[in-house]
Parts: sequence; C-alpha cells; structure tokens
Amino acid sequence: MKPPHIMTLADLSPRQINHIITHAHSLKIRSQKWLAPHIPIHQQNASSKLRQNMRLPSQSLFSKTIALLFSKRSTRTRIAAETSAELLGGRALFLGREDIQLGVNESARDTAQVISGMCQGIFARVGDHSEIEELAQYSKVPVLNALSSLWHPTQILADLLTLHENAGAFSREALEEEKKNMKRMTPILPELPPLTIAYVGDCANVLNDMLVTYPRLGHKVKVAAPLQYRSPPEVMARVKELGCDQNIEWFEDPKEAVWNANVIVNDTWISMGQEAEKADRLKAFEGYQVTEELCKFASPDWRFMHCLPRKPHEVNDAVFYGPRSLAFPEAENRKWTIMALFDLQFGRWNLDPPKPETAFIEDEVVSEVEGEEAKPKEE
Amino acid sequence: MKPPHIMTLADLSPRQINHIITHAHSLKIRSQKWLAPHIPIHQQNASSKLRQNMRLPSQSLFSKTIALLFSKRSTRTRIAAETSAELLGGRALFLGREDIQLGVNESARDTAQVISGMCQGIFARVGDHSEIEELAQYSKVPVLNALSSLWHPTQILADLLTLHENAGAFSREALEEEKKNMKRMTPILPELPPLTIAYVGDCANVLNDMLVTYPRLGHKVKVAAPLQYRSPPEVMARVKELGCDQNIEWFEDPKEAVWNANVIVNDTWISMGQEAEKADRLKAFEGYQVTEELCKFASPDWRFMHCLPRKPHEVNDAVFYGPRSLAFPEAENRKWTIMALFDLQFGRWNLDPPKPETAFIEDEVVSEVEGEEAKPKEE
Amino acid sequence: MKPPHIMTLADLSPRQINHIITHAHSLKIRSQKWLAPHIPIHQQNASSKLRQNMRLPSQSLFSKTIALLFSKRSTRTRIAAETSAELLGGRALFLGREDIQLGVNESARDTAQVISGMCQGIFARVGDHSEIEELAQYSKVPVLNALSSLWHPTQILADLLTLHENAGAFSREALEEEKKNMKRMTPILPELPPLTIAYVGDCANVLNDMLVTYPRLGHKVKVAAPLQYRSPPEVMARVKELGCDQNIEWFEDPKEAVWNANVIVNDTWISMGQEAEKADRLKAFEGYQVTEELCKFASPDWRFMHCLPRKPHEVNDAVFYGPRSLAFPEAENRKWTIMALFDLQFGRWNLDPPKPETAFIEDEVVSEVEGEEAKPKEE
Repeated sequence: MKPPHIMTLADLSPRQINHIITHAHSLKIRSQKWLAPHIPIHQQNASSKLRQNMRLPSQSLFSKTIALLFSKRSTRTRIAAETSAELLGGRALFLGREDIQLGVNESARDTAQVISGMCQGIFARVGDHSEIEELAQYSKVPVLNALSSLWHPTQILADLLTLHENAGAFSREALEEEKKNMKRMTPILPELPPLTIAYVGDCANVLNDMLVTYPRLGHKVKVAAPLQYRSPPEVMARVKELGCDQNIEWFEDPKEAVWNANVIVNDTWISMGQEAEKADRLKAFEGYQVTEELCKFASPDWRFMHCLPRKPHEVNDAVFYGPRSLAFPEAENRKWTIMALFDLQFGRWNLDPPKPETAFIEDEVVSEVEGEEAKPKEE
Repeated sequence: MKPPHIMTLADLSPRQINHIITHAHSLKIRSQKWLAPHIPIHQQNASSKLRQNMRLPSQSLFSKTIALLFSKRSTRTRIAAETSAELLGGRALFLGREDIQLGVNESARDTAQVISGMCQGIFARVGDHSEIEELAQYSKVPVLNALSSLWHPTQILADLLTLHENAGAFSREALEEEKKNMKRMTPILPELPPLTIAYVGDCANVLNDMLVTYPRLGHKVKVAAPLQYRSPPEVMARVKELGCDQNIEWFEDPKEAVWNANVIVNDTWISMGQEAEKADRLKAFEGYQVTEELCKFASPDWRFMHCLPRKPHEVNDAVFYGPRSLAFPEAENRKWTIMALFDLQFGRWNLDPPKPETAFIEDEVVSEVEGEEAKPKEE
Repeated sequence: MKPPHIMTLADLSPRQINHIITHAHSLKIRSQKWLAPHIPIHQQNASSKLRQNMRLPSQSLFSKTIALLFSKRSTRTRIAAETSAELLGGRALFLGREDIQLGVNESARDTAQVISGMCQGIFARVGDHSEIEELAQYSKVPVLNALSSLWHPTQILADLLTLHENAGAFSREALEEEKKNMKRMTPILPELPPLTIAYVGDCANVLNDMLVTYPRLGHKVKVAAPLQYRSPPEVMARVKELGCDQNIEWFEDPKEAVWNANVIVNDTWISMGQEAEKADRLKAFEGYQVTEELCKFASPDWRFMHCLPRKPHEVNDAVFYGPRSLAFPEAENRKWTIMALFDLQFGRWNLDPPKPETAFIEDEVVSEVEGEEAKPKEE
C-alpha cells in the first residue's frame, strides 16, 4: 500500500478537498469543547455536566509521532502542527535546520528511509520543491508539503475553511443557513456561492496553490502581478492540465484584479531567502499595497485575507486590522485544516469521504456507544 | 471572560497565593507516586497493589498546549514547565529566540493573537517587562510571567513551598505538626511562623517579587544591597500600594540584613545580558558573598536559599552544599509550583480556593468515586 | 535504592543483554499494530476487529519525562528516543548544546541534581566519557549513555536485534524456526548461531562496545584497523576483565579480518569533532573501503551493517544499498532497543528478566484480563 503524499492541492480531487474542509470544521467544533477552561466534576452544574458526554476528536495518531522537517523557520505552521498532533493523541517532533541536515551530512534518500522507519508521517518545509519530491520518493510513510518553493497546499485549505465559515457575508442563502445552524446542536459548514478572488502581489507558492484549486471548486481567480513575478512554467502546466486556466485572469493593474472581487488576498513581497532582492522588489510592487482606497473597486461584500507574517507595505493597518480582515481567523484555521490532514493522511492513509451510510453511523450511532468511553480522565 | 494573567505576585491576593502553594503540595504528593519506578501488576505484592487505587493529578491540560515563549535560555523554568504539562495531561511547546522572533519579523500584537488562537496558555520569559505586558494585552488566553526585567513570580512561589515544607526548622509547633502528618496517609502542608528573610545582593526580579509578597504573608524582609543596585521606582510604587513597605528594611552592610534572620536568600550578581558590567558589579558586591562567617549573625535556625544557577563568588561551597542549604529542594519545587499555576491558571482559569464544603468533597468523596477510573493503562 | 546506570554494555550481564533484546522484539511486534494506519471502528471488517483486542505496550513512562542531554547533534538516537517515549506513554525532552550548557554556565554536578529532581531518566550524548560518569555520580535517576568518546551501548543492542531477526540467513535451524514462527500468532525471536563478526575501520565507541559484548554471547570479533587507531587502554582493560580478549583477533589487512566472517561492520572514519584530522585519516584508512570485492573473502552468507550516517568512502553504493545490507533495518531497530531500555531502565529500574512463572503470567493471563482496558480511545 503506497503512502498518500500531498505535494500540492493539485494532487487532490475537489471531492477530497471538500471532505478535508468539512472534516476540519467538525474537528474544530469538537475540539473547542476540550480546549475550554476545565471545570472539575464536583464544581459542575447541570449544564456543564454536558461535558461528561463530550466525544473526543479522532485519536488516529495515538502513540504516533509525526516528524516536522523544517529547513525554514515557521510560527503558524509549526504551532498548528504541534497542537494538532496533541489533540489527535500523538506527537509532532520538530527537527529544524540545526537538528537534521537534509543533504549536508546525509542524503535526502537516507534521511527519508531512516525517519520513515521511526515516524508515522513527515510534514516538511523545504527550500527547493525538488527536495520534498525526493523525500516522498523514498519515504515509507505519507509526506505532506508544509511549504516549498512552488506550493503551499495547507495555506489554501485554511483559506477555504475561513471562506466557508464566512459564507454568510457573500450570499443571502448562506446567511439564512448560518442562522439556522446556530440553533442546532451540531453546526454545519455553510456552502459557498461562486466567488471572485483577487490576488495582488508576488506569484509565489500561496498563489500557485490557489490557481490549481479555486477554479475547480467553481470560483474565479484574478491576479495582479508585475510580469517578471508571475508563476513559473511548471505551475502553469499543472494549471492547464487541470483545466483551471479557464477561470483565471491576469492583470498588471491591481485595480483591475480587485474590480468586483469578493475576496482580496495578499502575501509577502519578499519571501525568506529573497532578502538580497529587497530593493528591486519594493520598487516592482510599488502601487500594489492593499488599502481601503484600492478596495473601493471591489464588490461591496469584500473581505481581506493574508497568510502572515504581514508587513505594512503590503497592506495598511486600516485594512489589516479592520472589520473586513479575516487574517486572524484564517491563521487559527491553519490549525484545524492541518489537524484534518494529520488525521486523514497520517492517521488513516485515507483522504476520501466515507460513503453516506457510514457517515450516518459515525454521527448518530457511534456517539452514543462511545459517549462513556470518551470521558476525560478527571481529578 | 477575561483570561487571568499573572505578571507578578502583586497581582494575586494572599489567599490566592496560599491556595497555589497548598495546591502545589497536593499535586507533588499525588504525582510522586506516578513518577516512582513502575512495577507491573502481576509483579506487585499486597502493599504495592495500592497503586491501583492511586488517583491521577488534575488532567485539566488534557489535549491542550502551553506555548513557552522564551527569549532567554533557561534550564529550571523550562524543564519544570515541560514536565508539569506532561503530568497534567497536556504539552508544553518550547519556542526559543530562534524559533519565533518577538518584535523582529512580527509584532508582539500579531504574535500574541496568533499564538493565543492555537495554544491554551502563554508562559513567557522576556527581556524588558513591557514585552510581556503587550503579550498579555492582546492574548486571548492567560499569560504567565516566566521572568522579566522586573518580576519573577514563579520563583517566589517555589521558595514559599520550600519554606512551608521546612517549617519544622523554624518553630516547635510546626515540628510537632510535621511529625503528626508523617503518620497520616495524606501529609498536610505545615503552617509557617512569621519569619525574617534576608536578601543579600542585586535587587532584581527575584527580590522584587519577594518585596510584594512576604510582607503580606506576615514575614519581614531585610535587604542588603549597594545603593546603586536597589529596586526601581515602579517596583517600589507597587510595594507601597500594597502596604508592604512597613515590613521591609534596607541596609548596605550584609551583616545587618542577616542579623537574626531565619532565611538568607541570594541570587546572581550578573544577570543574563549584564555581562559587560561584570567588573563593576564584582567590585560593587565585594563583601556580599554568603559564607558561614556571615551566617553567624543570623538566627541559629537559619536556612539558605538560591534560585540557581549559582556562582561561587555569591555563596561559597560550605554554605551552598552544606546542611542549611535548601537550594536543591527549592529547585525541584519550581516544578510543583509551576504545575499548580499551569493547572489553576491555564487549565481552569480559576486561581481562587474552592469554598470549604467543596474542598471536603474533593478530598473525601471524589477520591472513592474516581479511584477506579484513575488506574494507569497497564501492560 | 540506587538508580541503575548504563555507561557501556560491559555494565550488563549476558542474561540482561538477552532480556533487553527479547523485550525489544516483543515491544516492536506489539507497537507495530498501533502504528499502522488507523481504521475507525465502524469501518472495520471482521478481521480488523482484532484491533479491539490489541494490547498496549508497557506504559511504564506514563506521565514521566526523560531528559535527552545531547551535546552532539543526532538524528537516529534522538528520533528513536522521542518516538519510544511516546509509545511508552511518556515524553522525551530534548536539550541540546544551546539549551543547557553542561560545564559552562553550571557544573555537571548541579545540573545532574536539578534535572534528576524533575525528570525520571537522563539519556546523555556527551563529548568526553568522564562527563557522563559525573552525571551518573550525582543523578538521582538512571543515566543511559547515548554516545560518549569511549562507548556506544545502544548501537550494539540494535545490531544484536537485527542479527537475531536475520538469524535465518546464518543457520538452517534458525531458518526452520523462523518459518514456524511465521505461522504462530506471536513471533518468537530466533536464536543466533555463533557468528564471526568483522569490524573494518576506526576503533571508536561502536567497536569498543562490540568488544565487551559479542565474545560474552559466544561470537568471535575480528578487527582490521591501522595500529594508531586501535581501542584505548581503558577499553582494553575492560575487555580483558570480562575475559573477552579470548575471542578477539586484530589485523591490519581488511581481507584478513573479513575472511570467513558472517557479518561485516563499518563506521565513520571521521567522527564529529575530528574534522581537522580528515586528511590524515583518509590516508590512514586507504584500502579499508567495504566493497563487493572485499566481501568475496567473507563467508557466503555475509551481511553488512553500518550505524549511519554513511560516507561513500567507507562503503560503496553496491554494498550499502545492496541485498546484503542490513543498515536500514538496523537503523529502525535503534528505536525498539532504546524503547526496551527506556521501559526497563527508566520506567521500571529493573533490567533483569522475570522468573519463568512470571513470564508465563505476563504472556497468557494478563493479556486476557487487560484486553478490554487496552482499547484505544476511538472517535
């Protein structure tokens, strides 16, 4: 049985992508109860007694360890991975550039064989994309791309979850659906209407995974970028192969890309390792700053997203800390989407949604049977 | 609900401080059984069968992650935090200066928002005290000060627990109480008589938290320090505000401070970051070394405490490794007091002692009901 | 009760060594089921329902923390330790050279006392062997040598487990035994026939632990090394004291050592810290590369072992990646043998095999009684 690697969202079908998002939402709802301040049993009143019937999220990483091979430093991705593994009953093991020298003291081939003989998954943040491809080639366990020169699949999953959670902002039907869900015990993730998503800035890994994903889910992508900073041929080949190019438009003027967009997305202009190009890049991206002025060209329901960390030259304070910004919910959703992948990819080796009847069993029957077992160990 | 931050013990009432110490002692007693060498069930004899009725300490961090944001290196504080989280069913995530750049790549505001969206507590060791104040301002989860330029609350809690455990050294009543407790199943932490505590050396974070704490608990503090190394105005304002200044005396001559003291406390003369001032400081603190000679001026029951790491110029081997030194029990108690805070502050968001009736339930009834559940998973 | 330290396999009896290997094999078999991709209960078919009767490996590290004091970087040893602690219900806490400065900011004596007051075991990778001896002298908990200038006990345990697993390669009886085991539910580790083991290269810690171990287990060791790179007098004294010298032969010509050997072992020529001697060493070891040409002198059933990381000048690709190489299974077995030591030494403080009757209880009775309890927490 070949381990299911994920190098980019282009490796997944729209059905799998939707399954991951839905699963992330379900893990989030279930986990939040466990993460709330703890009330000892004898201090609980009738309503908090409900805690006793809380079900644990999947424990598919129980006793397992996921190696985090990070040749670049990271705050969000790393913390998301470490906290997710804990919630799934397992452990993430951070191995930075100083801990393990991919391709210095030992070949990627030998490293992949050794680590995959001891750990149950590899979540790798590499420099050149070829490095993670080599890891995947020799690993006996699933490899998930945490960021490479070409792709950033986990970021786009977090963006998608955030958009779904805010679907009420974009359509009346979703808003009604959202209100209904509030009254139910188990909130359901609302559907998204077809959106126009504008990307303004450097065409790097974040955009590349947007290009192979949003069009297949029914959304349109409009990109504003200087000609010299557009996505490389290997990415564009993948875009075309998936038929995504039909729903992508390219511009040089940010106003044209933003025109009528529901969502405006932005990223750093100077990625880690490009510090020497700083002056050139700042010059090339002049006029690309996202401001409320620019957003006047967008659809009246516009929202702003940014993968962080953020520099003020890319987006000003008024937008970034303003009411339209989804940047911080988006950051938190890194956790729940990475948790969904850790569960499905590393824990179960199964990224496909269950058949309808099975899903029914999972939601209704199993919860009663296992309610007792899922009690936390109490003082 | 606002998260309960702790920047200094000045933020806590004497009742809360005593509750934390008592809780630390109870966690210590309960945890030590779990940390003893394990005997498989089928090799246990009648007496060790008792293990099966052992109760787990609070599991209030179950599935949770506490971020350790440490801009300075640390042995005791870090290991205490990591081992405590494990005992409470959760995990500590160490993020050093290289892992996360507070105020370099990302603002403290953004960092606090992102981390508090993924972790359930922040234990931060910063440079300037203003940094931790800013973290607390933007964090959605409790922030605990692991050491700042001004305060060191967790050290004084460990010192207090150590003094309580050694109360028998200072009073006949406490000694009698201690002997009685030895015969009971559940040892009770003995009361402390009013003590005179001498601090000899640099007036930094350790002393500052002593100044706002001991006087409120009925103890007297006598400080010997060169005039130029005394506590800063913002600390003295807090001391006065709490009415602690009544029970504090200042001297330049160590002998005067030590005169009739029950406890002599000492700390490094050159804190991390002050290496350039080394020569000046060594000169200023000439004559401040704690030796048996100096301790002849103390009360005959004197004990010595030091927060470690220790340099011989501050205290000589005869005192430091001698029978009056509490330095190593004090170091171990960093663990149990930090565990108490992790449980109460991060796990429960509740630093107040339970009402008397509730305490009774916790000690007597719950233990029987939950005895069964608390069994460890056995091979 | 004195904690059981292990500085070298010379500290253990042959009976204890065999017990550790057997226990490692048993932990491996049991753990592999837990580490396989997880299938949720409601998706399990009849055969996978067996999972519900799976027994957990020993949880003797439950709630415990093992300190990894590593002054040298490490991939295999560290990952083996971290993943093992997780499987045993506890946690490994990695403390690198930057985290804790053994002998720089704080003496080994103070460090040992503080860490052993908070952690339940110390697994230390040091420079000079005297450093780990000093740690052991002052530690209140067991200390295990993860690598020192003189010894490397955990490597030889992994090699032994690998040889036992491949016993079928060396004897017809073992092969028959192996086939029978395949049909049983619980595979039993096959016995090893007496082997001739050739070591070709630098006489460092790996060889030193071979010299005090293999002869006592009935095997012969043949060493090829330049005269100036032979084991130091303190090692040879220990070899003699244990009567191992009877079964050791020394050569300068690799062909003579390899002649008729069943196993050929090799290690780096330039250990960490010897980078300055690189040119001298490459010259001294000219002709020591392990190639298929050299292995023609070995017994027809020869196998190759290497502790990794590997440099091509020591062993060429044809041998290293060839069908006779056990290098990668050997690397994986670092995990299971370290797990056995963590369980027996740190978890139980007991390295002796149980008496026959007890072993029977463990295998037959306890498994039924505890089958129920050992169920994983399920979604």
